Amino acid sequence: MKYKTCVSIAEGTPSKIKQVLKIALKKSDFAEIRFDFLNADQVPETIELIKKDLKRTVCTLRPKSEGGEFIGSEKERISILKLIAEYSPYLLDVELDTLRKNPSLARYLKNTNTKLLVSWHDFKKTPSTAELKNKMDQMSRFSSNIKIVSTAKSTDDSTRMLELYGKKGKCNLISFAMGDLGRISRILCLYLGSPYTYVSLGKAIAPGQFSVDEIKKIANLKK
Amino acid sequence: MKYKTCVSIAEGTPSKIKQVLKIALKKSDFAEIRFDFLNADQVPETIELIKKDLKRTVCTLRPKSEGGEFIGSEKERISILKLIAEYSPYLLDVELDTLRKNPSLARYLKNTNTKLLVSWHDFKKTPSTAELKNKMDQMSRFSSNIKIVSTAKSTDDSTRMLELYGKKGKCNLISFAMGDLGRISRILCLYLGSPYTYVSLGKAIAPGQFSVDEIKKIANLKK
Repeated sequence: MKYKTCVSIAEGTPSKIKQVLKIALKKSDFAEIRFDFLNADQVPETIELIKKDLKRTVCTLRPKSEGGEFIGSEKERISILKLIAEYSPYLLDVELDTLRKNPSLARYLKNTNTKLLVSWHDFKKTPSTAELKNKMDQMSRFSSNIKIVSTAKSTDDSTRMLELYGKKGKCNLISFAMGDLGRISRILCLYLGSPYTYVSLGKAIAPGQFSVDEIKKIANLKK
Repeated sequence: MKYKTCVSIAEGTPSKIKQVLKIALKKSDFAEIRFDFLNADQVPETIELIKKDLKRTVCTLRPKSEGGEFIGSEKERISILKLIAEYSPYLLDVELDTLRKNPSLARYLKNTNTKLLVSWHDFKKTPSTAELKNKMDQMSRFSSNIKIVSTAKSTDDSTRMLELYGKKGKCNLISFAMGDLGRISRILCLYLGSPYTYVSLGKAIAPGQFSVDEIKKIANLKK
Protein backbone atom coordinates (compact mmCIF):
# COMPACT_ATOMS: atom_id res chain seq x y z
CA MET A 1 0.00 0.00 0.00
CA LYS A 2 1.38 3.39 -0.96
CA TYR A 3 1.03 5.70 1.96
CA LYS A 4 2.06 9.07 3.27
CA THR A 5 1.64 10.23 6.83
CA CYS A 6 1.29 13.52 8.62
CA VAL A 7 2.24 13.48 12.31
CA SER A 8 0.02 15.74 14.42
CA ILE A 9 2.05 17.73 16.93
CA ALA A 10 0.34 19.33 19.90
CA GLU A 11 3.03 20.71 22.20
CA GLY A 12 3.00 23.67 24.57
CA THR A 13 6.38 25.37 24.06
CA PRO A 14 8.38 26.56 21.01
CA SER A 15 11.44 24.45 21.86
CA LYS A 16 9.35 21.32 22.42
CA ILE A 17 7.67 21.85 19.04
CA LYS A 18 11.03 22.21 17.33
CA GLN A 19 12.33 19.06 18.99
CA VAL A 20 9.26 16.93 18.23
CA LEU A 21 9.00 18.24 14.66
CA LYS A 22 12.54 17.07 13.98
CA ILE A 23 11.70 13.55 15.15
CA ALA A 24 8.35 13.57 13.32
CA LEU A 25 9.87 14.55 9.98
CA LYS A 26 12.39 11.74 10.24
CA LYS A 27 9.59 9.21 10.54
CA SER A 28 6.91 10.86 8.44
CA ASP A 29 6.45 12.65 5.12
CA PHE A 30 4.65 15.57 6.74
CA ALA A 31 3.85 16.98 10.14
CA GLU A 32 1.00 19.15 11.37
CA ILE A 33 1.68 21.73 14.02
CA ARG A 34 -1.30 22.57 16.17
CA PHE A 35 -0.32 26.16 17.03
CA ASP A 36 -3.43 26.42 19.17
CA PHE A 37 -1.65 24.42 21.88
CA LEU A 38 0.72 27.39 22.32
CA ASN A 39 -0.05 30.76 23.82
CA ALA A 40 -0.77 33.21 21.04
CA ASP A 41 2.36 35.27 21.81
CA GLN A 42 4.60 32.21 21.36
CA VAL A 43 3.60 31.66 17.74
CA PRO A 44 5.96 34.21 16.08
CA GLU A 45 9.00 32.79 17.90
CA THR A 46 7.96 29.22 17.09
CA ILE A 47 7.46 29.81 13.41
CA GLU A 48 10.88 31.46 13.17
CA LEU A 49 12.44 28.48 14.96
CA ILE A 50 11.04 25.93 12.52
CA LYS A 51 10.93 27.90 9.28
CA LYS A 52 13.31 25.52 7.50
CA ASP A 53 10.90 22.67 7.99
CA LEU A 54 7.72 24.52 7.00
CA LYS A 55 7.72 23.16 3.46
CA ARG A 56 6.69 19.78 4.94
CA THR A 57 4.45 21.23 7.62
CA VAL A 58 0.69 21.69 7.83
CA CYS A 59 -0.04 24.70 10.07
CA THR A 60 -3.23 24.71 12.11
CA LEU A 61 -4.62 27.19 14.65
CA ARG A 62 -7.86 25.59 15.68
CA PRO A 63 -10.45 27.65 17.63
CA LYS A 64 -12.41 26.19 20.55
CA SER A 65 -15.56 26.22 18.43
CA GLU A 66 -13.95 23.65 16.11
CA GLY A 67 -12.50 21.39 18.77
CA GLY A 68 -9.25 23.34 19.16
CA GLU A 69 -7.39 24.92 22.06
CA PHE A 70 -6.83 28.51 20.91
CA ILE A 71 -7.36 31.03 23.71
CA GLY A 72 -7.68 34.55 22.44
CA SER A 73 -9.92 36.71 20.35
CA GLU A 74 -10.95 35.78 16.82
CA LYS A 75 -9.24 38.98 15.64
CA GLU A 76 -5.98 37.78 17.17
CA ARG A 77 -6.42 34.35 15.59
CA ILE A 78 -6.94 35.87 12.15
CA SER A 79 -3.82 38.00 12.46
CA ILE A 80 -1.77 34.94 13.48
CA LEU A 81 -3.13 33.02 10.48
CA LYS A 82 -1.97 35.87 8.25
CA LEU A 83 1.45 35.79 9.87
CA ILE A 84 1.79 32.05 9.27
CA ALA A 85 0.72 32.54 5.65
CA GLU A 86 3.76 34.79 5.13
CA TYR A 87 5.99 31.75 5.73
CA SER A 88 4.38 29.68 2.93
CA PRO A 89 4.00 26.39 4.76
CA TYR A 90 3.19 23.14 2.93
CA LEU A 91 -0.46 23.78 3.84
CA LEU A 92 -2.26 26.29 6.02
CA ASP A 93 -5.34 24.67 7.54
CA VAL A 94 -8.22 27.15 7.88
CA GLU A 95 -11.75 26.15 8.81
CA LEU A 96 -14.54 26.60 6.27
CA ASP A 97 -16.52 28.61 8.81
CA THR A 98 -13.58 30.94 9.42
CA LEU A 99 -13.29 31.67 5.70
CA ARG A 100 -17.02 32.19 5.30
CA LYS A 101 -17.17 34.60 8.20
CA ASN A 102 -14.09 36.53 7.08
CA PRO A 103 -14.19 37.25 3.37
CA SER A 104 -11.28 39.64 3.80
CA LEU A 105 -9.12 36.83 5.23
CA ALA A 106 -10.09 34.59 2.32
CA ARG A 107 -9.11 37.36 -0.11
CA TYR A 108 -5.88 38.04 1.75
CA LEU A 109 -4.84 34.40 1.64
CA LYS A 110 -5.73 34.16 -2.02
CA ASN A 111 -3.53 37.16 -2.82
CA THR A 112 -0.56 35.72 -0.96
CA ASN A 113 -0.86 32.42 -2.87
CA THR A 114 -0.91 30.54 0.40
CA LYS A 115 -1.57 26.82 -0.09
CA LEU A 116 -4.81 26.61 1.77
CA LEU A 117 -6.33 23.47 3.29
CA VAL A 118 -9.98 24.20 3.94
CA SER A 119 -11.24 22.05 6.80
CA TRP A 120 -14.52 21.01 8.32
CA HIS A 121 -15.03 18.70 11.31
CA ASP A 122 -17.96 17.07 13.05
CA PHE A 123 -16.94 15.74 16.46
CA LYS A 124 -20.31 14.17 17.23
CA LYS A 125 -21.62 12.36 14.17
CA THR A 126 -21.45 11.83 10.42
CA PRO A 127 -23.96 14.03 8.57
CA SER A 128 -25.98 12.81 5.60
CA THR A 129 -24.12 12.28 2.33
CA ALA A 130 -26.04 15.17 0.74
CA GLU A 131 -24.89 17.46 3.55
CA LEU A 132 -21.29 16.30 3.23
CA LYS A 133 -21.33 16.86 -0.51
CA ASN A 134 -22.74 20.32 0.08
CA LYS A 135 -19.88 21.10 2.50
CA MET A 136 -17.36 19.88 -0.07
CA ASP A 137 -18.85 22.16 -2.70
CA GLN A 138 -18.62 25.13 -0.35
CA MET A 139 -15.04 24.27 0.55
CA SER A 140 -13.91 23.86 -3.04
CA ARG A 141 -14.74 27.51 -3.67
CA PHE A 142 -11.86 28.45 -1.39
CA SER A 143 -9.24 25.86 -2.31
CA SER A 144 -8.61 22.61 -4.15
CA ASN A 145 -7.27 21.15 -0.88
CA ILE A 146 -10.13 19.93 1.24
CA LYS A 147 -10.27 18.18 4.59
CA ILE A 148 -13.63 16.86 5.74
CA VAL A 149 -13.77 14.81 8.91
CA SER A 150 -16.67 13.33 10.86
CA THR A 151 -17.21 10.96 13.77
CA ALA A 152 -18.27 7.39 12.97
CA LYS A 153 -21.09 5.83 14.95
CA SER A 154 -21.22 2.85 12.57
CA THR A 155 -19.21 1.22 9.79
CA ASP A 156 -21.62 2.77 7.37
CA ASP A 157 -20.59 6.26 8.56
CA SER A 158 -17.01 5.34 7.89
CA THR A 159 -17.83 4.04 4.42
CA ARG A 160 -19.85 7.13 3.55
CA MET A 161 -16.88 9.35 4.38
CA LEU A 162 -14.79 7.20 2.03
CA GLU A 163 -17.41 7.35 -0.71
CA LEU A 164 -16.69 11.09 -0.95
CA TYR A 165 -13.50 10.18 -2.84
CA GLY A 166 -15.79 9.23 -5.72
CA LYS A 167 -17.23 12.74 -5.73
CA LYS A 168 -14.07 14.79 -5.26
CA GLY A 169 -13.62 15.93 -8.83
CA LYS A 170 -10.25 17.67 -9.16
CA CYS A 171 -9.86 18.35 -5.45
CA ASN A 172 -7.13 16.94 -3.24
CA LEU A 173 -9.41 15.38 -0.68
CA ILE A 174 -8.68 14.25 2.86
CA SER A 175 -11.82 12.56 4.14
CA PHE A 176 -12.16 10.10 6.98
CA ALA A 177 -14.11 9.42 10.16
CA MET A 178 -12.83 9.73 13.72
CA GLY A 179 -13.60 7.26 16.52
CA ASP A 180 -13.02 3.53 16.88
CA LEU A 181 -15.49 2.66 14.12
CA GLY A 182 -13.71 5.15 11.87
CA ARG A 183 -10.23 3.67 12.26
CA ILE A 184 -10.57 1.71 9.07
CA SER A 185 -11.20 4.91 7.11
CA ARG A 186 -7.87 6.33 8.32
CA ILE A 187 -6.17 3.46 6.45
CA LEU A 188 -8.48 3.06 3.48
CA CYS A 189 -8.44 6.81 2.65
CA LEU A 190 -4.82 6.30 1.53
CA TYR A 191 -5.91 3.60 -0.86
CA LEU A 192 -8.52 5.96 -2.33
CA GLY A 193 -6.19 8.87 -2.99
CA SER A 194 -5.84 10.87 0.21
CA PRO A 195 -2.52 12.76 0.04
CA TYR A 196 -1.71 11.51 3.54
CA THR A 197 -3.28 10.26 6.77
CA TYR A 198 -2.94 11.98 10.13
CA VAL A 199 -1.01 9.95 12.70
CA SER A 200 0.44 10.47 16.15
CA LEU A 201 4.05 10.16 17.20
CA GLY A 202 3.07 8.32 20.37
CA LYS A 203 -0.33 8.55 21.98
CA ALA A 204 -3.25 9.44 19.70
CA ILE A 205 -4.20 13.13 19.60
CA ALA A 206 -7.51 12.59 17.79
CA PRO A 207 -9.97 9.74 18.43
CA GLY A 208 -9.08 6.58 16.50
CA GLN A 209 -5.73 7.91 15.29
CA PHE A 210 -2.95 5.41 14.60
CA SER A 211 0.66 6.08 15.49
CA VAL A 212 3.21 6.52 12.71
CA ASP A 213 4.79 3.19 13.73
CA GLU A 214 1.45 1.38 13.56
CA ILE A 215 0.78 2.68 10.04
CA LYS A 216 4.27 1.68 8.96
CA LYS A 217 3.69 -1.87 10.16
CA ILE A 218 0.33 -2.06 8.41
CA ALA A 219 1.70 -0.63 5.16
CA ASN A 220 4.70 -2.94 5.21
CA LEU A 221 2.60 -6.10 5.58
CA LYS A 222 2.51 -6.49 1.84
CA LYS A 223 5.89 -5.73 0.33
CA MET B 1 -9.82 -4.73 -3.70
CA LYS B 2 -10.40 -8.36 -4.62
CA TYR B 3 -12.46 -9.97 -1.96
CA LYS B 4 -14.41 -13.09 -1.13
CA THR B 5 -16.76 -13.45 1.77
CA CYS B 6 -18.10 -16.27 3.91
CA VAL B 7 -21.38 -15.56 5.68
CA SER B 8 -21.55 -17.15 9.12
CA ILE B 9 -24.93 -18.76 9.75
CA ALA B 10 -26.03 -19.58 13.29
CA GLU B 11 -29.66 -20.70 13.18
CA GLY B 12 -31.58 -23.08 15.38
CA THR B 13 -33.71 -25.16 12.95
CA PRO B 14 -33.02 -27.10 9.73
CA SER B 15 -35.56 -25.15 7.69
CA LYS B 16 -34.25 -21.81 8.91
CA ILE B 17 -30.71 -22.84 7.97
CA LYS B 18 -31.84 -23.84 4.49
CA GLN B 19 -33.65 -20.56 4.05
CA VAL B 20 -30.80 -18.36 5.31
CA LEU B 21 -28.18 -20.33 3.38
CA LYS B 22 -30.03 -19.63 0.15
CA ILE B 23 -29.98 -15.88 0.81
CA ALA B 24 -26.36 -15.99 2.00
CA LEU B 25 -25.10 -17.74 -1.13
CA LYS B 26 -26.79 -15.18 -3.34
CA LYS B 27 -24.85 -12.41 -1.63
CA SER B 28 -21.63 -14.21 -0.78
CA ASP B 29 -19.07 -16.58 -2.32
CA PHE B 30 -19.24 -18.94 0.65
CA ALA B 31 -21.25 -19.56 3.79
CA GLU B 32 -20.34 -21.17 7.08
CA ILE B 33 -22.94 -23.22 8.90
CA ARG B 34 -22.51 -23.34 12.63
CA PHE B 35 -24.12 -26.73 13.22
CA ASP B 36 -23.51 -26.31 16.95
CA PHE B 37 -26.51 -23.95 17.07
CA LEU B 38 -28.73 -26.98 16.27
CA ASN B 39 -29.58 -29.90 18.50
CA ALA B 40 -27.29 -32.80 17.66
CA ASP B 41 -30.18 -34.91 16.36
CA GLN B 42 -31.14 -32.23 13.82
CA VAL B 43 -27.80 -32.33 12.00
CA PRO B 44 -28.48 -35.34 9.72
CA GLU B 45 -31.76 -33.87 8.46
CA THR B 46 -30.15 -30.46 7.96
CA ILE B 47 -27.21 -31.72 5.97
CA GLU B 48 -29.55 -33.69 3.68
CA LEU B 49 -31.65 -30.55 3.16
CA ILE B 50 -28.70 -28.43 2.03
CA LYS B 51 -26.49 -31.00 0.34
CA LYS B 52 -26.63 -29.26 -3.02
CA ASP B 53 -25.06 -26.15 -1.55
CA LEU B 54 -22.34 -27.86 0.44
CA LYS B 55 -19.67 -27.27 -2.19
CA ARG B 56 -19.73 -23.60 -1.15
CA THR B 57 -20.23 -24.26 2.55
CA VAL B 58 -17.83 -24.35 5.46
CA CYS B 59 -19.20 -26.76 8.10
CA THR B 60 -18.44 -26.07 11.74
CA LEU B 61 -19.52 -27.85 14.92
CA ARG B 62 -17.87 -25.81 17.62
CA PRO B 63 -17.67 -27.21 21.17
CA LYS B 64 -18.28 -25.03 24.25
CA SER B 65 -14.57 -25.21 25.10
CA GLU B 66 -13.80 -23.32 21.87
CA GLY B 67 -16.53 -20.72 22.16
CA GLY B 68 -19.23 -22.81 20.47
CA GLU B 69 -22.72 -23.92 21.43
CA PHE B 70 -22.59 -27.70 20.98
CA ILE B 71 -24.45 -29.53 23.73
CA GLY B 72 -23.65 -33.19 23.82
CA SER B 73 -20.77 -35.54 24.47
CA GLU B 74 -17.46 -35.27 22.65
CA LYS B 75 -18.06 -38.77 21.29
CA GLU B 76 -21.31 -37.58 19.75
CA ARG B 77 -19.58 -34.51 18.30
CA ILE B 78 -16.88 -36.65 16.68
CA SER B 79 -19.45 -38.92 15.07
CA ILE B 80 -21.32 -35.92 13.66
CA LEU B 81 -18.07 -34.51 12.26
CA LYS B 82 -17.53 -37.85 10.51
CA LEU B 83 -21.05 -37.73 9.13
CA ILE B 84 -20.52 -34.24 7.72
CA ALA B 85 -17.23 -35.36 6.18
CA GLU B 86 -19.15 -37.91 4.09
CA TYR B 87 -20.85 -35.05 2.30
CA SER B 88 -17.55 -33.44 1.17
CA PRO B 89 -18.32 -29.81 1.99
CA TYR B 90 -16.17 -26.98 0.69
CA LEU B 91 -14.35 -27.08 4.04
CA LEU B 92 -14.89 -28.93 7.29
CA ASP B 93 -13.70 -26.77 10.19
CA VAL B 94 -12.17 -28.87 12.98
CA GLU B 95 -10.30 -27.40 15.93
CA LEU B 96 -6.60 -28.12 16.34
CA ASP B 97 -7.22 -29.40 19.85
CA THR B 98 -9.89 -31.81 18.61
CA LEU B 99 -7.48 -33.28 16.07
CA ARG B 100 -4.66 -33.53 18.60
CA LYS B 101 -6.85 -35.32 21.13
CA ASN B 102 -8.36 -37.68 18.54
CA PRO B 103 -5.68 -39.13 16.28
CA SER B 104 -8.21 -41.63 14.97
CA LEU B 105 -10.49 -38.78 13.80
CA ALA B 106 -7.54 -37.10 12.12
CA ARG B 107 -6.71 -40.38 10.34
CA TYR B 108 -10.34 -40.95 9.39
CA LEU B 109 -10.66 -37.50 7.86
CA LYS B 110 -7.39 -37.94 6.00
CA ASN B 111 -8.62 -41.22 4.49
CA THR B 112 -11.89 -39.70 3.33
CA ASN B 113 -10.01 -36.84 1.61
CA THR B 114 -12.15 -34.34 3.44
CA LYS B 115 -11.04 -30.76 2.83
CA LEU B 116 -10.12 -29.89 6.36
CA LEU B 117 -9.87 -26.38 7.81
CA VAL B 118 -7.88 -26.66 11.03
CA SER B 119 -8.86 -23.88 13.40
CA TRP B 120 -7.59 -22.27 16.55
CA HIS B 121 -9.18 -19.36 18.45
CA ASP B 122 -8.26 -17.15 21.37
CA PHE B 123 -11.28 -15.25 22.65
CA LYS B 124 -9.36 -13.29 25.25
CA LYS B 125 -6.12 -12.04 23.80
CA THR B 126 -3.49 -12.28 21.06
CA PRO B 127 -0.63 -14.59 22.08
CA SER B 128 3.00 -13.83 21.31
CA THR B 129 4.11 -14.13 17.68
CA ALA B 130 6.31 -17.12 18.59
CA GLU B 131 3.31 -18.89 20.10
CA LEU B 132 1.15 -18.11 17.06
CA LYS B 133 3.82 -19.43 14.72
CA ASN B 134 4.06 -22.56 16.81
CA LYS B 135 0.28 -23.07 16.53
CA MET B 136 0.50 -22.61 12.76
CA ASP B 137 3.20 -25.25 12.54
CA GLN B 138 1.11 -27.69 14.53
CA MET B 139 -1.95 -26.97 12.40
CA SER B 140 -0.11 -27.38 9.10
CA ARG B 141 0.60 -31.02 10.01
CA PHE B 142 -3.12 -31.71 9.67
CA SER B 143 -4.04 -29.60 6.65
CA SER B 144 -2.87 -26.84 4.34
CA ASN B 145 -6.02 -24.90 5.24
CA ILE B 146 -5.46 -23.02 8.47
CA LYS B 147 -7.61 -20.62 10.45
CA ILE B 148 -6.00 -18.81 13.35
CA VAL B 149 -7.99 -16.15 15.15
CA SER B 150 -7.26 -14.07 18.23
CA THR B 151 -8.76 -11.12 20.09
CA ALA B 152 -7.14 -7.71 19.59
CA LYS B 153 -6.47 -5.55 22.62
CA SER B 154 -4.41 -3.11 20.52
CA THR B 155 -3.66 -2.24 16.89
CA ASP B 156 -0.40 -4.06 17.34
CA ASP B 157 -2.27 -7.30 18.10
CA SER B 158 -4.20 -6.85 14.88
CA THR B 159 -1.02 -6.21 12.90
CA ARG B 160 0.72 -9.23 14.38
CA MET B 161 -2.12 -11.47 13.26
CA LEU B 162 -1.70 -10.04 9.75
CA GLU B 163 2.07 -10.52 9.85
CA LEU B 164 1.41 -14.27 9.93
CA TYR B 165 0.65 -14.05 6.19
CA GLY B 166 4.38 -13.50 5.72
CA LYS B 167 5.08 -16.80 7.46
CA LYS B 168 2.38 -18.99 5.93
CA GLY B 169 4.54 -20.90 3.45
CA LYS B 170 2.28 -22.91 1.15
CA CYS B 171 -0.71 -22.87 3.48
CA ASN B 172 -4.06 -21.28 2.72
CA LEU B 173 -4.18 -19.02 5.74
CA ILE B 174 -7.12 -17.27 7.35
CA SER B 175 -5.73 -15.11 10.11
CA PHE B 176 -7.31 -12.09 11.76
CA ALA B 177 -8.18 -10.62 15.15
CA MET B 178 -11.65 -10.30 16.65
CA GLY B 179 -12.90 -7.27 18.57
CA ASP B 180 -13.23 -3.61 17.65
CA LEU B 181 -9.48 -3.12 17.42
CA GLY B 182 -9.31 -6.15 15.13
CA ARG B 183 -11.88 -4.92 12.59
CA ILE B 184 -9.18 -3.61 10.32
CA SER B 185 -7.62 -7.09 10.11
CA ARG B 186 -10.91 -8.51 8.80
CA ILE B 187 -10.50 -6.25 5.77
CA LEU B 188 -6.73 -6.25 5.36
CA CYS B 189 -6.51 -10.08 5.53
CA LEU B 190 -8.14 -10.12 2.08
CA TYR B 191 -5.44 -7.88 0.73
CA LEU B 192 -2.79 -10.25 2.11
CA GLY B 193 -4.18 -13.44 0.58
CA SER B 194 -6.89 -14.77 2.86
CA PRO B 195 -9.25 -16.95 0.76
CA TYR B 196 -12.20 -15.07 2.26
CA THR B 197 -13.31 -13.05 5.27
CA TYR B 198 -16.11 -14.08 7.62
CA VAL B 199 -19.11 -11.75 7.55
CA SER B 200 -22.64 -11.69 8.92
CA LEU B 201 -25.86 -11.48 6.97
CA GLY B 202 -27.30 -8.98 9.43
CA LYS B 203 -26.12 -8.58 12.99
CA ALA B 204 -22.54 -9.65 13.73
CA ILE B 205 -22.14 -13.19 15.08
CA ALA B 206 -18.51 -12.75 16.13
CA PRO B 207 -17.01 -9.62 17.75
CA GLY B 208 -15.96 -7.00 15.20
CA GLN B 209 -17.52 -8.84 12.24
CA PHE B 210 -18.74 -6.76 9.29
CA SER B 211 -21.93 -7.57 7.43
CA VAL B 212 -21.75 -8.78 3.84
CA ASP B 213 -23.27 -5.47 2.71
CA GLU B 214 -20.68 -3.44 4.62
CA ILE B 215 -17.81 -5.36 3.02
CA LYS B 216 -19.36 -4.92 -0.41
CA LYS B 217 -19.51 -1.16 0.09
CA ILE B 218 -15.91 -1.04 1.28
CA ALA B 219 -14.66 -3.21 -1.57
CA ASN B 220 -16.56 -1.20 -4.15
CA LEU B 221 -15.11 2.13 -3.03
CA LYS B 222 -12.32 1.73 -5.54
CA LYS B 223 -13.65 0.39 -8.81
